[in-house]
Amino acid sequence: MYRGNFDIEDYLESREALRHLTVVEDGAGLKLTLRRYAEDDVQLALRLVELEDGIRLESLSAAEGINRFWLRVAAQDEERVWGCGEQMSYFDLRGRHFPLWTSEPGVGRDKSTYVTWQSDVVNRAGGDYYHTNYPQPTFVSSRRYFCDVETTHYADFDFRSADFHELQVWGIPSTVVLRSAPTFIQLVENIGAHFGRQPKLPEWVYNGVILGLKRGQAHAEAKLAEALANNMAVSALWCEDWAGVRETSFGTRLFWDWRWQAERYPSLDKMIDELRHQGVQFLGYVNPYLCVDGHFFPEAQAQGYLATDGQGQTAVVDFGEFDCGVVDFTNPAACTWFKDVIIKRQMLDLGLSGWMADFGEYLPIDVTLSNGVCAKQEHNRWPVRWAQVNAEAIAEAGLTDKATFFMRAGYSGVQAHCPLLWAGDQSVDFTRHDGLATVICAALSSGLMGNAFHHSDIGGYTSIFGNTRDAELFMRWTDMAAFTPVMRTHESNRPTENVQWFDDAEVAAHLARMSRVYVRLAPYLKSLVAEGSERSLPVQRPLFLHFEDDAACYAIQDQYLYGPDLLVAPVHEAGRSDWSAYLPEGVEWVHLWSGERYPGGQRVTVAAPYGEPPVFYRAESTWEPLFIEVADQD
Amino acid sequence: MYRGNFDIEDYLESREALRHLTVVEDGAGLKLTLRRYAEDDVQLALRLVELEDGIRLESLSAAEGINRFWLRVAAQDEERVWGCGEQMSYFDLRGRHFPLWTSEPGVGRDKSTYVTWQSDVVNRAGGDYYHTNYPQPTFVSSRRYFCDVETTHYADFDFRSADFHELQVWGIPSTVVLRSAPTFIQLVENIGAHFGRQPKLPEWVYNGVILGLKRGQAHAEAKLAEALANNMAVSALWCEDWAGVRETSFGTRLFWDWRWQAERYPSLDKMIDELRHQGVQFLGYVNPYLCVDGHFFPEAQAQGYLATDGQGQTAVVDFGEFDCGVVDFTNPAACTWFKDVIIKRQMLDLGLSGWMADFGEYLPIDVTLSNGVCAKQEHNRWPVRWAQVNAEAIAEAGLTDKATFFMRAGYSGVQAHCPLLWAGDQSVDFTRHDGLATVICAALSSGLMGNAFHHSDIGGYTSIFGNTRDAELFMRWTDMAAFTPVMRTHESNRPTENVQWFDDAEVAAHLARMSRVYVRLAPYLKSLVAEGSERSLPVQRPLFLHFEDDAACYAIQDQYLYGPDLLVAPVHEAGRSDWSAYLPEGVEWVHLWSGERYPGGQRVTVAAPYGEPPVFYRAESTWEPLFIEVADQD
Repeated sequence: MYRGNFDIEDYLESREALRHLTVVEDGAGLKLTLRRYAEDDVQLALRLVELEDGIRLESLSAAEGINRFWLRVAAQDEERVWGCGEQMSYFDLRGRHFPLWTSEPGVGRDKSTYVTWQSDVVNRAGGDYYHTNYPQPTFVSSRRYFCDVETTHYADFDFRSADFHELQVWGIPSTVVLRSAPTFIQLVENIGAHFGRQPKLPEWVYNGVILGLKRGQAHAEAKLAEALANNMAVSALWCEDWAGVRETSFGTRLFWDWRWQAERYPSLDKMIDELRHQGVQFLGYVNPYLCVDGHFFPEAQAQGYLATDGQGQTAVVDFGEFDCGVVDFTNPAACTWFKDVIIKRQMLDLGLSGWMADFGEYLPIDVTLSNGVCAKQEHNRWPVRWAQVNAEAIAEAGLTDKATFFMRAGYSGVQAHCPLLWAGDQSVDFTRHDGLATVICAALSSGLMGNAFHHSDIGGYTSIFGNTRDAELFMRWTDMAAFTPVMRTHESNRPTENVQWFDDAEVAAHLARMSRVYVRLAPYLKSLVAEGSERSLPVQRPLFLHFEDDAACYAIQDQYLYGPDLLVAPVHEAGRSDWSAYLPEGVEWVHLWSGERYPGGQRVTVAAPYGEPPVFYRAESTWEPLFIEVADQD
Repeated sequence: MYRGNFDIEDYLESREALRHLTVVEDGAGLKLTLRRYAEDDVQLALRLVELEDGIRLESLSAAEGINRFWLRVAAQDEERVWGCGEQMSYFDLRGRHFPLWTSEPGVGRDKSTYVTWQSDVVNRAGGDYYHTNYPQPTFVSSRRYFCDVETTHYADFDFRSADFHELQVWGIPSTVVLRSAPTFIQLVENIGAHFGRQPKLPEWVYNGVILGLKRGQAHAEAKLAEALANNMAVSALWCEDWAGVRETSFGTRLFWDWRWQAERYPSLDKMIDELRHQGVQFLGYVNPYLCVDGHFFPEAQAQGYLATDGQGQTAVVDFGEFDCGVVDFTNPAACTWFKDVIIKRQMLDLGLSGWMADFGEYLPIDVTLSNGVCAKQEHNRWPVRWAQVNAEAIAEAGLTDKATFFMRAGYSGVQAHCPLLWAGDQSVDFTRHDGLATVICAALSSGLMGNAFHHSDIGGYTSIFGNTRDAELFMRWTDMAAFTPVMRTHESNRPTENVQWFDDAEVAAHLARMSRVYVRLAPYLKSLVAEGSERSLPVQRPLFLHFEDDAACYAIQDQYLYGPDLLVAPVHEAGRSDWSAYLPEGVEWVHLWSGERYPGGQRVTVAAPYGEPPVFYRAESTWEPLFIEVADQD
């Protein structure tokens, strides 16, 4: 690992087919005993349990020394597969393999770009198409089944073969489940039931855009005033720097010691009160590390709440000119402490209505944890533990319907704890593998895994090696964000070098306009959020979810259905004044802004000025009056 | 394959240890029968034959479906290994694995450089540390044995493990030989005997530098006159463009139709005669392809001498805006035709004294060959077939002691046919993985494989993506080349953008001076060439070849012994005025230019102006009078 980026290599000693199978009914199911040949010792014992809608393979025992597992699932030529967590580059996974290991997603993620090359050379951080903060060993097949492998070991799902999907796991998974459903809608509901559902988003979310500001209290207050003067609908201020900052040679970084820092926010408590009176929430930032020069590190260390190095010393991780301890969430006492002392006392008691729960994908694999499990095996589970700590703290404070948090990291089971995903740190550009459009792929793939609510940094985040965002990117991203569950801006990693809405009147006016579009659409969005919370149907849906019979829908990953009645095709190229979108067949579609009607089953081109992202609604929608109101210029 | 660069991927279905061994004496040796388990069918039968100095494993039979082979050779912690053909990046192979597949060697060969990145992005040609025109599944161990795997299948030798070397072959090798010797000198002699030896270089080589010129007859004659006026010792003109050129969007390329082209060389026959009277030879260029718009393609096609596409059509290969047929050297009649009609009639009869026999590493793997062997299996053998055609043509013309040729491609057995290696197409720079110093590594590694004679393009060849050579690089390369078996300049791929000796008076004078150094040293070089030809001792030798007991010698890959009595440490960085070299212990060394004496067993720093490359001789050398004469300024 180098700052969240991993080099993973394997040396394959032997790989042997377990060709000799014995089957015995054992009451609980069929007991499968696998050997390499008839006279061999038992290598693997499994139980096959029949479910109403599929099967479950349970592992019973494995011979000593078996540390790799390959399973083939029969495939068909035309089959498509989706999922594997939150994928940024490819929605349809067929034809590629996907290593499943939570990590930094890469900067650039495309070896042919300058940013990727420089990120690799300078920071070992360029990444590739499969890198993601949120991998998951679960896929959905176009044959209307899902397959989940229950494991936290490193895995690699290979969808390159014509006849089979090959699932590789660096350990024996506890179970493998295959379950089918008659429709994709039903399948996604079942996936949601399998992994857990999210609560509804708090009501304040619908009040407008969350403004990301990170230059102290005065700046935050001033920018809010500017926003309101611009007639911007603002739901919250999100101030990452509420706990302070530190200067490094890389620029200003946050101070990783999770409590109000008065130097930067002299009267934060009063500010939060006043904001609330204006109907504006205050959001903060937290991550699972504690800097060694902070207030909480000594306390956590003294209590034994930090991961150790195996020699009994506290493990410290270098995050770039500062070192941190790793809170050991395998220790229940450490979880309780983090929930009580940090989240409840420092954050919720202060009046925070939410936060970015950052990281989760960085558990170093060489630390020693209190539960005695190897960190390699805990690594993928870490985002889930981290989500759980946050969710439980909020629940224990009785604030689940009032406060929220958003995470980029995930793994199987994060669905039950993380109320809102954010797509991570896109580059501030339109690039194929790290730009605006990757956010759509991320929403669609994570949505099929039962994560109903997704959003992203408006304008992207990562600005490096001369790549900076311009007004066009910010406005196109804003256009899209108005049709996602949550609108939230980010100043980027280099605020002064990148366009901010408050530095550009046109951008500010545009953001204000789209914040009002978002607010006007809220009744419809609320209905989708209810569906998401109750049935796990993602707010942003692949076209085929509602149009199973339209073959043309299956290959599309840069459009989405926003609930059943809206279709969104965000502009994701520079310099465009129009845009083409595919409209699924069988229904009539109405262009939101012009009211023009189009029969489905064709690709149409519409004008796409800033502020009018290509959005269409079903002609027969009962929401039509609202959609007409939404489109009304103001 | 894309223009000589290959993407090679494997899908490993199963890899099983053959743990069950039966041994039977069968007269010819020990017959080894290998099974996975006692009741298994025989998977592999081998014969183990004891040799005077080692063992030979012969494969007798393999079960159907076995198409991969792994063999482990016991290793020790401190062991070093060398060889695997002509390696450009690493002389000591330990700690890395080496795919063995003849191909383009890559441009840049270092993912951190701009040239490599752009070569990858634009041309899929950046390459990596192991890419080479001349791989060979043979290694030499510091435990004083060599191991040769007789196969032409793709192989990958892995020297990363502490306890074993793992030799992977994509097929069953016919034999595996391990042979030891009491000294490294003896070991290299035995390797030479195993693979074949080279004839002595023709006497004219010692007359001076071979001037690479490729702008037609008038230019060649004019530049020779300039060279002679500069008091340059010239042995030959090497005019690649003797058969004509074609213009492409990439620049001027050669016309791949192997006969004198009068447009570019109006009176080449007379010119060659006149040159010979001046003691200057004329060299040309040939490769194993025939362009479809040339004179010879229709003839070769009509006779069935070209590889086909499996549907009976002639396979044509795109070389960048022109297509070529592939002469099928598995067809004896095609070899005879190429030797008689092209090499003897067009080249030797015209009076050529040698040529670059280019390519050999490009056999496309999707062509059909007349011998019925899969092109994947012929691919690695192709350089050897190509060398053999050239060598036999010269031998059949009775000119082995008069004419020569030089190749960059190679494979096991090329030693018996190729009289002179050239190090391929270095970048015109000092970079670690594609610049000047890689030529030393190439000479050392190929030398241990029994290739006694090596040289390189003075100044490098590949100029691309803004990388151009300057006078310093050309002069440093010249300094080194004077202490190699053959001095030869190259105009590079972009002659007008790169420094040429004839465009810069200082460079011309310097080349002239070093050509005279080379000539004065010729008596010593001839003795080394004789040793090379008779005993396969390479002219350029790793330090440990003569200093087995000096542990410090083993890690050095940027110096060489030039025969037993000279040590050469070429300057391979820009901006240097001095240079440090390690002098092996146990003898006293004399700095060639200053006469200063140094005890061995230390690293010394000497002044290193242009024209005085760091060279030292053994104080007790019987050649001392010659060395003193060589160093005399003139």
